[in-house]
Amino acid sequence: MKQLIYADNAATTKLDADAFEAMKPFLEEEYGNASQPYSFSRSAKKAISEAREIIASCIGAEPDEIYFTSGGSESDNWVIKSAVFSDGFKRATITSRIEHHAVLNACAAIEQLGYPVTYLPVSDEGIVQPEQLEQYINDKTRLVSVMLANNEIGTIEPIADLATIAHAHGALFHTDAVQAVGHIPIDVNALGVDMLSASAHKFNGMKGSGFLYIRKGVDICSFVDGGAQEYGKRAGTENVAAITAMAVALRKNFDRMKSIERKLRKLETILLDGLTSSGIVYMRNGSRNHLPGNVNISIRNVDGEMLLHRLDLKGICVSTGSACDSVNTRVSHVIEAIHVPDEYAKGTIRISFGAENTEDDAAAIARELTSILKR
Amino acid sequence: MKQLIYADNAATTKLDADAFEAMKPFLEEEYGNASQPYSFSRSAKKAISEAREIIASCIGAEPDEIYFTSGGSESDNWVIKSAVFSDGFKRATITSRIEHHAVLNACAAIEQLGYPVTYLPVSDEGIVQPEQLEQYINDKTRLVSVMLANNEIGTIEPIADLATIAHAHGALFHTDAVQAVGHIPIDVNALGVDMLSASAHKFNGMKGSGFLYIRKGVDICSFVDGGAQEYGKRAGTENVAAITAMAVALRKNFDRMKSIERKLRKLETILLDGLTSSGIVYMRNGSRNHLPGNVNISIRNVDGEMLLHRLDLKGICVSTGSACDSVNTRVSHVIEAIHVPDEYAKGTIRISFGAENTEDDAAAIARELTSILKR
Repeated sequence: MKQLIYADNAATTKLDADAFEAMKPFLEEEYGNASQPYSFSRSAKKAISEAREIIASCIGAEPDEIYFTSGGSESDNWVIKSAVFSDGFKRATITSRIEHHAVLNACAAIEQLGYPVTYLPVSDEGIVQPEQLEQYINDKTRLVSVMLANNEIGTIEPIADLATIAHAHGALFHTDAVQAVGHIPIDVNALGVDMLSASAHKFNGMKGSGFLYIRKGVDICSFVDGGAQEYGKRAGTENVAAITAMAVALRKNFDRMKSIERKLRKLETILLDGLTSSGIVYMRNGSRNHLPGNVNISIRNVDGEMLLHRLDLKGICVSTGSACDSVNTRVSHVIEAIHVPDEYAKGTIRISFGAENTEDDAAAIARELTSILKR
Repeated sequence: MKQLIYADNAATTKLDADAFEAMKPFLEEEYGNASQPYSFSRSAKKAISEAREIIASCIGAEPDEIYFTSGGSESDNWVIKSAVFSDGFKRATITSRIEHHAVLNACAAIEQLGYPVTYLPVSDEGIVQPEQLEQYINDKTRLVSVMLANNEIGTIEPIADLATIAHAHGALFHTDAVQAVGHIPIDVNALGVDMLSASAHKFNGMKGSGFLYIRKGVDICSFVDGGAQEYGKRAGTENVAAITAMAVALRKNFDRMKSIERKLRKLETILLDGLTSSGIVYMRNGSRNHLPGNVNISIRNVDGEMLLHRLDLKGICVSTGSACDSVNTRVSHVIEAIHVPDEYAKGTIRISFGAENTEDDAAAIARELTSILKR
């Protein structure tokens, strides 16, 4: 089997080996339902409580502000769909044009029910401008939802400024931090957010688990109603194994964040220098302030799908856009929103390095891309 | 450590060892995002597609009628909350008084939004009477949701009859089959249901995963919007490992269903005969037609909580009601609905045997209960 160079860490990451070890007891002998009162469930209950503390400490929150969910999509849907129902009025939601589809399609769903949604434009670097929010917000706005970092181009948004504006108008502020948690420092108080979505498998946890941070005092009704789990706010038997894995993985990423960032910035440079020195003409998308390891480039008069498949033949995994868009061949909504010129837009690929990638990986991707483009 | 007798299989079950083995590759090397187009994701994609076929075949469905979710609570919420939004009219939902809280609390949530809900009474055996449904249904009813088998008392409901009535009035029919799937034969066509909820950890799959069966042609909007996963109906990166485990576990339970049922019926008899021969006075709750292994009894002038804790000291896990009610000491809504007399109601415990239990377990539970009650 040929060697794999996995450079699609924005789509998903490998489950951390220690996280897997930490899960095992709950997949084997410690299978008790954490909501049951007998001793056999004690270790499950304890694991969940410890995970909640660890996760809270990694984002500057309190443990009882962390609500476990099935992942980022559920967390985003919870916020977008439940916030509007909190009173009898059809108050407005404001979001941006470059959100993940979990936010955009949830917004489309509430629009169908008659709740107004405004989609803010972004700069050519993918930045949601605070002055744009100022222009559209008013005292009837219920919720502002802007992502912390974009999943395609990696742009980090001015969340603290946006949240301040939202609060000045009495609106709640939510951020989809699915791409950011575990990768850049996050403090929910410094950001001033009321709610924050995260997904475990984006930071070496297991697929199918995530969380929603909800600031104490924020009133938002449940999305998944039922049992009394998660302080009565999110029903469903606790996924102890995945919750444990998520905490272990996040803590590890948190502790190594600085050194991983340094490494990933270097990999970005190696890749881009490799392309430049081979004479490849490309545009780099996104802003200078972007997620470590994200390299989103558009190459003139080339088809991104073709590049992806040719790289695949070499054992290299990259993406043409967001994972969720990969079945479509059309230009992604993000690339459209940042006005990448037509002759470049279709030639867009996203390389997203992770902690396991090496300098050789970055050099190899540059070399293979060159060989595809130059022949 | 003292030996554990786990007799709370209605709360959760042990992950099947083969199911765990089948998960491992997807928790280790095969971590690719199943929605990505490169070769590295091929085995994940294949596993999901095979799991869909296996699960469909176990309930008489087509593979593309199976939508993976994060479990029973999500599946139930999906149906209850999305069905009402399918047109602009506030049409009614009919359910029963003994549903799981995932259905009941989702119904309470839509009532808050102005959608009417009727809660059918049940017989003293916990049976939803078709004539009761006839009485309340009309052509404005949008959805009827009645569970296939009750989680506390095990009563199996006359779903085929109820579904026929629903359809005669143009309503959709959903069944919460969380307690039934993997334990009794199910054929969605024989039952005539439009939607059916299931949870993997109730049949030796992993916690945090489940599915919703939606009959082809049934129009119900998404609950978790976002990416194009699950035929565009349920967003979120596929939880390949848990989906694989669910299929393996269901198939195994399906293949052994008859022999497990025979065994569980015998364990019920051993337990009850043991109590009777010791002179314990109890009422058995539920109907003759009940889930294999479910023994729900009410003992006069005794506190169920006390029994649970005293059994716990002997290493025996049972429940006082549904898992989700275990933080409350009040009599469960099911025990109330079937009119268990006051002097018995608080002394209710549920013993739920699983395939791993032995005749010795059943005898030991009878013996320990006797020793607690007789001294």
